[in-house]
Amino acid sequence: MKINVLLSPLNADELYFTGKTTIVIDVLRASTVITTALNNGAKEVIPVNTVEFGMKISGNAFSGHTIIGGERNTIKIDGFNLGNSPLEYNADTVTGKSIILFTTNGTKAIVKAKFSESVLICCFNNIKSIAKHVVELGKDVEILCAGSNGMFCIEDTVCAGKLITEIEEANGGVKITDAGKASVVLNKSFGKSINKMLRDSEHGKLLIENGFSDDIEYCSQLDIIDNVPVYNSGVIKL
Amino acid sequence: MKINVLLSPLNADELYFTGKTTIVIDVLRASTVITTALNNGAKEVIPVNTVEFGMKISGNAFSGHTIIGGERNTIKIDGFNLGNSPLEYNADTVTGKSIILFTTNGTKAIVKAKFSESVLICCFNNIKSIAKHVVELGKDVEILCAGSNGMFCIEDTVCAGKLITEIEEANGGVKITDAGKASVVLNKSFGKSINKMLRDSEHGKLLIENGFSDDIEYCSQLDIIDNVPVYNSGVIKL
Repeated sequence: MKINVLLSPLNADELYFTGKTTIVIDVLRASTVITTALNNGAKEVIPVNTVEFGMKISGNAFSGHTIIGGERNTIKIDGFNLGNSPLEYNADTVTGKSIILFTTNGTKAIVKAKFSESVLICCFNNIKSIAKHVVELGKDVEILCAGSNGMFCIEDTVCAGKLITEIEEANGGVKITDAGKASVVLNKSFGKSINKMLRDSEHGKLLIENGFSDDIEYCSQLDIIDNVPVYNSGVIKL
Repeated sequence: MKINVLLSPLNADELYFTGKTTIVIDVLRASTVITTALNNGAKEVIPVNTVEFGMKISGNAFSGHTIIGGERNTIKIDGFNLGNSPLEYNADTVTGKSIILFTTNGTKAIVKAKFSESVLICCFNNIKSIAKHVVELGKDVEILCAGSNGMFCIEDTVCAGKLITEIEEANGGVKITDAGKASVVLNKSFGKSINKMLRDSEHGKLLIENGFSDDIEYCSQLDIIDNVPVYNSGVIKL
């Protein structure tokens, strides 16, 4: 098994993912929102890469069964039902619902990986479940960090490093690329306190400034959810 | 002073660099070749981003005063005078010459940064000189890692981390982005033995396979050259 990490979605084009097993990580906050919403009973999450497409398909959907959520510059978009805080996606709000989700980095990264054979959604909350699933699959893996506006971000890379470490512990024969080795080292250093790492990160500081301090607490929790969200034919389900 | 690291040229477009101070790193081997050639008396190095443009401008140049060098897949290009090994660019060969250089990652990254206010070329060989120059400049800095075909590569990132560490030691008030902090941590871990890091890297292994083991030895040497190559109006000079 070979594991590579793409530190930004700009490192590869859509066709790069054809036939691959891809794991998308956007710790702050899209992959945490998706993992949480599905854990709290949402029927499915439909990631979109433009607000316009999100509005269009939400207009077609049955009223009451569909929620549209997402953010621009960390803040809820006008006319959307929810923002991009995982705390909003509780059971009362999402049970049985289809959620259309647009975010600046995460949902675009997921849609970019659409030609993959399978796309899994990972965050700190469900890292052990994803690692277990990947070991069972036994296939080569691309870990796609959503990053921040095309740039590197520390939290997704540390999460990638922790995921690789979990996979390695269960499967000794893993081959890791330079980017994978770097992620493992960054997890060893910054992953000792995920909460501190998130608070000190560029994106974390912006979230705290904008009043989302509780989101950081929530996103930093390791293995509180046991699920494997899979993106297939435009829809993410368990 | 603020320092950012771009882990791949794909992380930003040409206009991103407008007015900035950019340091381009391609340890294996373009930035090492450029630093070495200028140290050995070359008049100038002209980086090009296509073989065709290199051939075109070499055809116009005075015979005997111009050398064309570079590689594809680590190997010298047919019809070129030199490959991309720094050991070829010795004083006997390059003194007084204009060198047109095409390489897979490094020269493309340099040309991409062309709208910068100034572009400096850095490798392990001249890292202290570059750090000293940057501290004297006192301006915000973008470190652009040439990477490998758009992907992350460990050796450029470790070199960036070492450069930041040198700058920090001389100038306490440096603000570093997430990517900069990650580079510093990677240098702490992988930079302890530059030679081993280069030999274990993906690009290093490829060079060794193709017979360039001596290049690895040469490129791993810290601070053997005291110069600051500057790219300005299409030409790199000291």
